[in-house]
Amino acid sequence: MQPEQGRVIDLRAAEALRLQAQGATRDAALRYASVVFPESMSAAIALGQRFLDTATEAAAKYGDDVSCAIDGLQWGAACDPSVVRDGLTFTKHIRQFHERMNISPTPALLEVPGYFKGSPWTVIGHEAEVPWPARSERLDYELELGWVVGRQAHNITPDVARSYLFGVTIFNDFSARDLQGNEFAIGMGPTKSKDFAYGIGPWITTIDEFERLDNIRMSARVNGETWGEGDTSEMLWTPEELIAYVSLGDYAQPGDVIGSGTMGNGSALELGRSVKPGDVIELDVKGVGVLRNRIARQPQETWWPQRRTPFM
Amino acid sequence: MQPEQGRVIDLRAAEALRLQAQGATRDAALRYASVVFPESMSAAIALGQRFLDTATEAAAKYGDDVSCAIDGLQWGAACDPSVVRDGLTFTKHIRQFHERMNISPTPALLEVPGYFKGSPWTVIGHEAEVPWPARSERLDYELELGWVVGRQAHNITPDVARSYLFGVTIFNDFSARDLQGNEFAIGMGPTKSKDFAYGIGPWITTIDEFERLDNIRMSARVNGETWGEGDTSEMLWTPEELIAYVSLGDYAQPGDVIGSGTMGNGSALELGRSVKPGDVIELDVKGVGVLRNRIARQPQETWWPQRRTPFM
Repeated sequence: MQPEQGRVIDLRAAEALRLQAQGATRDAALRYASVVFPESMSAAIALGQRFLDTATEAAAKYGDDVSCAIDGLQWGAACDPSVVRDGLTFTKHIRQFHERMNISPTPALLEVPGYFKGSPWTVIGHEAEVPWPARSERLDYELELGWVVGRQAHNITPDVARSYLFGVTIFNDFSARDLQGNEFAIGMGPTKSKDFAYGIGPWITTIDEFERLDNIRMSARVNGETWGEGDTSEMLWTPEELIAYVSLGDYAQPGDVIGSGTMGNGSALELGRSVKPGDVIELDVKGVGVLRNRIARQPQETWWPQRRTPFM
Repeated sequence: MQPEQGRVIDLRAAEALRLQAQGATRDAALRYASVVFPESMSAAIALGQRFLDTATEAAAKYGDDVSCAIDGLQWGAACDPSVVRDGLTFTKHIRQFHERMNISPTPALLEVPGYFKGSPWTVIGHEAEVPWPARSERLDYELELGWVVGRQAHNITPDVARSYLFGVTIFNDFSARDLQGNEFAIGMGPTKSKDFAYGIGPWITTIDEFERLDNIRMSARVNGETWGEGDTSEMLWTPEELIAYVSLGDYAQPGDVIGSGTMGNGSALELGRSVKPGDVIELDVKGVGVLRNRIARQPQETWWPQRRTPFM
C-alpha cells in the first residue's frame, strides 16, 4: 500500500488496535497511540526511530483494517516546521533569474550558502488555496524540494548531515515578484513577497528511499500544462552543506523544512510568464508525488504603509 | 512589590494556594495553576485577560507567601517567541549606520517597514552568556525594545494595533558585523550574522504602564561605561505601523517579539567601536529594567563552507 492504491492508513487507529490485541484497554491504547502519532508531524519526527518503527509495525499488522480512501480527505501540510528556511543552489535557476532581472549575481553567492527564513504560520498543504498577497500584481510559484530534518542539528558538519535528514517533501515557495524589489533593496530578507504561502506536501518520502539526492526529477505544471522540468543536478551547495551551514550557531529542529532552492526553469519568472487567479499549480517530484494548489482571487483593497519623506 | 524590593513571586504557587483556600485539592490546584502559569510565556499570554487577571489576584492574595529573592535565580528569556522579527525605524541609527558603512540608504526604506526574521532557537535571557559566532572577528550589540504581541494579529491596521500589544521588553540584537556583508549582498536576510543570540528580558512591562511609546529612554553600557543613550523618538515607522505590516498576510502570535529596531548610538559600530570576549553588555530601558549579558570566548575552529568557483 497505499497511496498508489488510492488509500491511506490511520496509523493512530492501527496502533491502538495492535495494543488492544496485546491486552491494553481502549483508553490506554488511544492515549499511547496519540503520543506516537500526534497531531504535529514535528512532534512525531522528534520521537526518532520509535516513530518510524511503530508506524511500520502498526501499518503491517492493522493497516488494512483502518485504511481509508484518499479521495475526500482533508489535507494538512505534510509537516509543521518551527522555522521555514529556503536555500538557493541550482545554478541554472540563479543564472536565468539574474538574466531576467537584468542584474549580475553577487560574488557573495560563492562564499556562503544563501538561505532565507520564512514565517511558519503561512505554511499550507496539498489542495489548499494560495491566498493572493496584498498589493501584488505578479504572483509566481517556485519548484523545490523540501529537506525534512529528522534530529536536532547544531554545529554539525556536511559529512554527517545526511543522517540528520528524515525525508524529502515538495516545497512550493510562492513569491510576489513585484514586492521583491523593495525587500531585496532593504536587505533584511523577504517579508511580504514570501510570507503568505509556503506549500508543503503532499507526502514526506523517508530518506532511505533515495540513493542519491542529486538526480531527483521534478516538473511544474500550470493548469495541466508542463511549464518546467529538470532534476536536482548542478547544485552550487549540496543539501548536506546547506544543512550543516543552517546548523552553525543555530538549531534545526526535527520536522523543520529547508527548501532546496528553486530548480532551473522552476519558476514562471524564468520563462517570462506569470500566474493568475484560479490557476492550478502542480509540482511533481519523482519518488514523492504531486503537490497541487489553486491560486485564490485577488483580495479587496487592504491597508498598506504610506510612503515616507526622505530624512537624509 | 517586587523587583524593586529584590524579590519575585512564584505565581503558580500563589494561585495554587488561593485555590486550595477555596477548597481545591492540592493536585487539582497545581494542575489548574500550571495551565494558567505554564512554562511557556507565549502559552500564558495566549490565555489573554484570564492570565493577567489571575496573576493580579494571586499576587495580591498570596504573593508575599511565595515570593523569593531575585539573587541566585536562574533566568530564562522573558518570553519564547514563535518567530523573532526585528524592525528598522530610528532615523539616527539608520543615518549613522550608513555613514559608518560608507553606503547610501536605499529609497526602499521609505516605501515599506523593513524587518527581518530570526531563528527563535537562539533566544537567550538575562545573565545568559552570548556565544561568539563562528568565523566572526567583530561582534556587536544593538539596543532595542521588544514589542511583545498579546493576541494573534492577522491583517490588522495601525489604528487598532496598540490593542494587540501585551507589553514591552528589552531586545539585544547581537550582530556579527563582518558576516553581514555577504549576507546583505545575497539579499535573503541575515543568517549567521544574527542567528546566534537574541537577548530578551529580563522583564516584560505590560503595555498599560506606557502612556506613550515614542519617549521611552534607553541606554547601553559596556563593562559599566555608558556607550550610548537616547529615546524612542524620531521613528520612521511607528510600532503600530510595524505590527500592522507584520500582520499583513502573515500571523503574529501571542508572545511573539518584534524588535523595535536599533536606537541611534545603540550599537558599537556607530561609535566606531566593537566588543570583545568577556565584555558585559547592559541595556537599560526606563520602565523595564536592565538586560545584562556577557560575551563568551571565541570558539574553537569550526567547519565553514568552502568558496565555490564562479559558474557564470
